[in-house]
Amino acid sequence: MAFSSFIKIFLPKDRVFYGLFEEVAGVLTEMTQVFTQAVNETNPQKRETFIKKLEDLEHKNDDITHRIFIELGRNFITPFDREDIHMLATSLDDIADFLWGAAKRIHNYQIQDNDELAKDFADVITRSVIALSKAVKELRDMKDLRAITESCVKINSLENEADELLDKAMLSLFSAPNISAVELIKKKDLYEMLETVTDKCEDAANVIESIIIKYA
Amino acid sequence: MAFSSFIKIFLPKDRVFYGLFEEVAGVLTEMTQVFTQAVNETNPQKRETFIKKLEDLEHKNDDITHRIFIELGRNFITPFDREDIHMLATSLDDIADFLWGAAKRIHNYQIQDNDELAKDFADVITRSVIALSKAVKELRDMKDLRAITESCVKINSLENEADELLDKAMLSLFSAPNISAVELIKKKDLYEMLETVTDKCEDAANVIESIIIKYA
Amino acid sequence: MAFSSFIKIFLPKDRVFYGLFEEVAGVLTEMTQVFTQAVNETNPQKRETFIKKLEDLEHKNDDITHRIFIELGRNFITPFDREDIHMLATSLDDIADFLWGAAKRIHNYQIQDNDELAKDFADVITRSVIALSKAVKELRDMKDLRAITESCVKINSLENEADELLDKAMLSLFSAPNISAVELIKKKDLYEMLETVTDKCEDAANVIESIIIKYA
Repeated sequence: MAFSSFIKIFLPKDRVFYGLFEEVAGVLTEMTQVFTQAVNETNPQKRETFIKKLEDLEHKNDDITHRIFIELGRNFITPFDREDIHMLATSLDDIADFLWGAAKRIHNYQIQDNDELAKDFADVITRSVIALSKAVKELRDMKDLRAITESCVKINSLENEADELLDKAMLSLFSAPNISAVELIKKKDLYEMLETVTDKCEDAANVIESIIIKYA
Repeated sequence: MAFSSFIKIFLPKDRVFYGLFEEVAGVLTEMTQVFTQAVNETNPQKRETFIKKLEDLEHKNDDITHRIFIELGRNFITPFDREDIHMLATSLDDIADFLWGAAKRIHNYQIQDNDELAKDFADVITRSVIALSKAVKELRDMKDLRAITESCVKINSLENEADELLDKAMLSLFSAPNISAVELIKKKDLYEMLETVTDKCEDAANVIESIIIKYA
Repeated sequence: MAFSSFIKIFLPKDRVFYGLFEEVAGVLTEMTQVFTQAVNETNPQKRETFIKKLEDLEHKNDDITHRIFIELGRNFITPFDREDIHMLATSLDDIADFLWGAAKRIHNYQIQDNDELAKDFADVITRSVIALSKAVKELRDMKDLRAITESCVKINSLENEADELLDKAMLSLFSAPNISAVELIKKKDLYEMLETVTDKCEDAANVIESIIIKYA
């Protein structure tokens, strides 16, 4: 809050939002890196350290998102529709929530094995968040609309990739001859949560696409 | 996109939306027919053909929904509130998503038996989508408000019917003495998804109801 | 509807909403009391009576929420943004839906034991709804903004408490050595639904917070 008041003195009111969205994009990018480290870590204690770090990042993201909503209440002039700012902030926050939700499941369900499918999901999610960060940064000057559109198309195709990963995962879980039901519940829940992260990236990309249609 | 540009020459801008919503309603109706065929089919190969067809229809619906959002960005004049158009498009798209999601579960979980409850759900969903299509078509000229309201009331009562089906299903699954946990997970997930389809029909009906209150 | 038409003669149009939101808050408070009685009841028949009572209250809440949407369609003058009224009504309705959903699970899954964690959740939910009711009542005259903010902060911290309860619950379910998978499914589903109730309280608090930022 203090920092936000400070920058409002130096920046035109409506430019505050670009900085806040870029901060969110930065935290999300860091979260995908830490999540990737967590699913690649074989040492349980070290994995827990990464999961704890994800929790801190998720809290940090909550704070920035909260500042976006506070600014939205204060500012009469916004760089794009208030509703679009609200929807973009919400969908970006959902990405953090579901990624942290997936990490928490690894902890709560005590998933011990080095899960290949979780690594595949981490990779798709990382690429999707990188594309999303690019699109968010381009919103500031709206100069390279083609780059924004390309990022959005990429996010859509990564969501399809995650869909196919989930289908493959489910088919394999439900046809595994000796899987215990408890094991199946754990993995099903984890994979579904990871696939939802890419859905939320797509939601954010859709908002960005609708913004550039209106304002460019 | 090409077709959409074409009709914009001949139609007042704001009338584009009626045609697009009617296209969505048409695809949804076809999806309920194909889904009904899938759950009534006993031959696994033939059932797979119906599920594949549903996937194609879901993609077709995605394309039309995408065109609605593009038009929404372009058009300054809309026949009803932009927010209502957005919410109606979203809830109709959700219907397609969840119905396709249910079909995908039948495939991924390799649900082989001819499930009586799935047929009952297919029937309720079909009737709900028929009522919804009627309401969507009536939006164009707003002449028969009573017919729109009647359709919305019907959709609400079909959602209650689906609720009761789900309760019955859950009570029966959880009191089945010899059901395997894996079997229970499959069916629980399928029925919950099918019930959600009727929730999404109700969401769409609520948007339509709020439109006619404002504009009639 | 008849009652709503009646009060519109005596009250300025825009004040109708305060009364309706207070009615919702009242029903939600009663629902948390009945839910608490249900989870503390050891006699199965008596517990069923409480669950039936919850269903009636949920229907009552649906009716009031429907009236809010009807008024929103009719009224051109609203005491705060139409979108905020819509979001507040929706999130309050979600609280009722998920609480009733939890109660229905106790019934459908035939959860017989006196569940300590369900009682803990009932307690957190009750305190959250009490804080929310206070905030809703204060909206009418906007005199005590500090009290509204304090209620919202409390609701946020209760949501965190529910998160921790859920983590504890999941860790304990998934490390229980002799739990049956079916038992695990029942409890997991019930606790997740109860935690979602506090999420919806937080959503409502966020809307209220954004209203007071704009209008105070």
